[in-house]
Amino acid sequence: MKIALLQMKYQGSHKKTIEKTVENIRQASRDKSSLVILQELHQGEYFCQSEDTKNFEYAKNFDDDVIFWSKVAKQYGVVLVTSLFEQRTAGLYHNTAVVFDKDGTMAGKYRKMHIPDDPSFHEKFYFTPGDLGFKPIKTSIGTLGILLCWDQWYPEAARIMSLNGAQILIYPTAIGWFDNDSKEEKKKQLKAWKIIQQSHAIANSIPVVCVNRVGLERHPRDLREQGIRFWGNSFVCDGWGSILAKGEKDKEEIVYAKLDLKQSKEIRDIWPFFRDRRIDAYKDILQRYCW
Amino acid sequence: MKIALLQMKYQGSHKKTIEKTVENIRQASRDKSSLVILQELHQGEYFCQSEDTKNFEYAKNFDDDVIFWSKVAKQYGVVLVTSLFEQRTAGLYHNTAVVFDKDGTMAGKYRKMHIPDDPSFHEKFYFTPGDLGFKPIKTSIGTLGILLCWDQWYPEAARIMSLNGAQILIYPTAIGWFDNDSKEEKKKQLKAWKIIQQSHAIANSIPVVCVNRVGLERHPRDLREQGIRFWGNSFVCDGWGSILAKGEKDKEEIVYAKLDLKQSKEIRDIWPFFRDRRIDAYKDILQRYCW
Repeated sequence: MKIALLQMKYQGSHKKTIEKTVENIRQASRDKSSLVILQELHQGEYFCQSEDTKNFEYAKNFDDDVIFWSKVAKQYGVVLVTSLFEQRTAGLYHNTAVVFDKDGTMAGKYRKMHIPDDPSFHEKFYFTPGDLGFKPIKTSIGTLGILLCWDQWYPEAARIMSLNGAQILIYPTAIGWFDNDSKEEKKKQLKAWKIIQQSHAIANSIPVVCVNRVGLERHPRDLREQGIRFWGNSFVCDGWGSILAKGEKDKEEIVYAKLDLKQSKEIRDIWPFFRDRRIDAYKDILQRYCW
Repeated sequence: MKIALLQMKYQGSHKKTIEKTVENIRQASRDKSSLVILQELHQGEYFCQSEDTKNFEYAKNFDDDVIFWSKVAKQYGVVLVTSLFEQRTAGLYHNTAVVFDKDGTMAGKYRKMHIPDDPSFHEKFYFTPGDLGFKPIKTSIGTLGILLCWDQWYPEAARIMSLNGAQILIYPTAIGWFDNDSKEEKKKQLKAWKIIQQSHAIANSIPVVCVNRVGLERHPRDLREQGIRFWGNSFVCDGWGSILAKGEKDKEEIVYAKLDLKQSKEIRDIWPFFRDRRIDAYKDILQRYCW
């Protein structure tokens, strides 16, 4: 199975960004990809750098967005993983991945469960934590465990997706550096981010796909702020955590990889981690902290 | 805080192995280490290659073993992490780590929770799964989350140790290759083993210490069997998952590293993973499988 990861920059407007995304989906389809994965909040800029109620406008056309991407999936005959801003009702918004099957039907959706909030990543202002749990989405090409960005730091999320039958873990994401950070700081952040995601592949013996945004996006209001330089580095690894394909840190590109979903059984038969889990002894996982 | 990892070969007899271990502890103490960590089942050969009731003999002197290592810890003034074969009563044995403080007092013990069973690693024959849970052990130099070998594949174990206050995760281990495995197979196994352990450091923002055995140990009975070539590669990483020190794949050595336990707070204040855990949504972790 050939898959395509669209690692892109914000093109200066939502219109241009969506146009270029559709053009890239067309290209990926021509190149015989059966699964195309878009980065987090791919319709526009990463608007969470500041807290601004105007940005809620982006969520109000969620139903139209769903219809739009449904048509794109159908037109190009690909399973499509999108990442949208969902208005559920006034004052209630989610960071929501919607998956479409090749015929345009909505296969399912996932609402981001772990919401970050750091300087320049004010997501708790915009997004209510998801209430759909960690349920993978069945499609004609396999069962997809969609998780979003900050979720990638939580082994619990990956594990539960896997226990629920996910055959691939997929992380649309938007993470980057601040230019003022030291070279060493940047390097260790990027490395930690790769390793934690590879580890989910290893712990669960299934492939992991991570699609990250790229390019500098300046802070919209505070000119003293540097903005975020999204670090690209989208990648695909197999169930051993071995890297199959990888994007650059500073370039737009379509990253292609071939996945073999049968590998999972081979690995699990050799290294049967699921056999020996101590489910009788994991209750403390449900605690905030044990002190 | 300076720590020492004793990566060793089996010396041909228990007596010689213990003598060399004590000599190495003396060396580590001279070199000003305050924490010394021994590899899994360091008193002798890795006897789980075959199923042989004679090997239960090794467990019957557990109480004497505890007294012996207690004296060694006191004599050299180090916190000492040992890994022993414990007879609890006839027909009931554990793979047990015992930790001694600098003054020789027993700080605590941990019974291996996840027990593997693979060709040449017949641990389910020998070891009853631990019943002490994932409780870190308090010592004069910090709170140690001791886990053993196969435990290293389980993010749940690392997480619960951390939620219970572990400041370091420590894995005495005995893992290796079969010579008949391809070079590529060996490489990806080793890589997966490193990554999964680094990921526990990253997910919990605390250092990880892993001490692995080294050298070829032939199968004791079946000459057609190749035996296990333990792959060394003991390592220490900090709370970013960055490698601080590392052993060779085929040499005995004392691996030294310096740990800064204050780093944990710095990392967690920047990347506060604990803040955002969805403890309301993790119940499926307690399932064997959700289908």
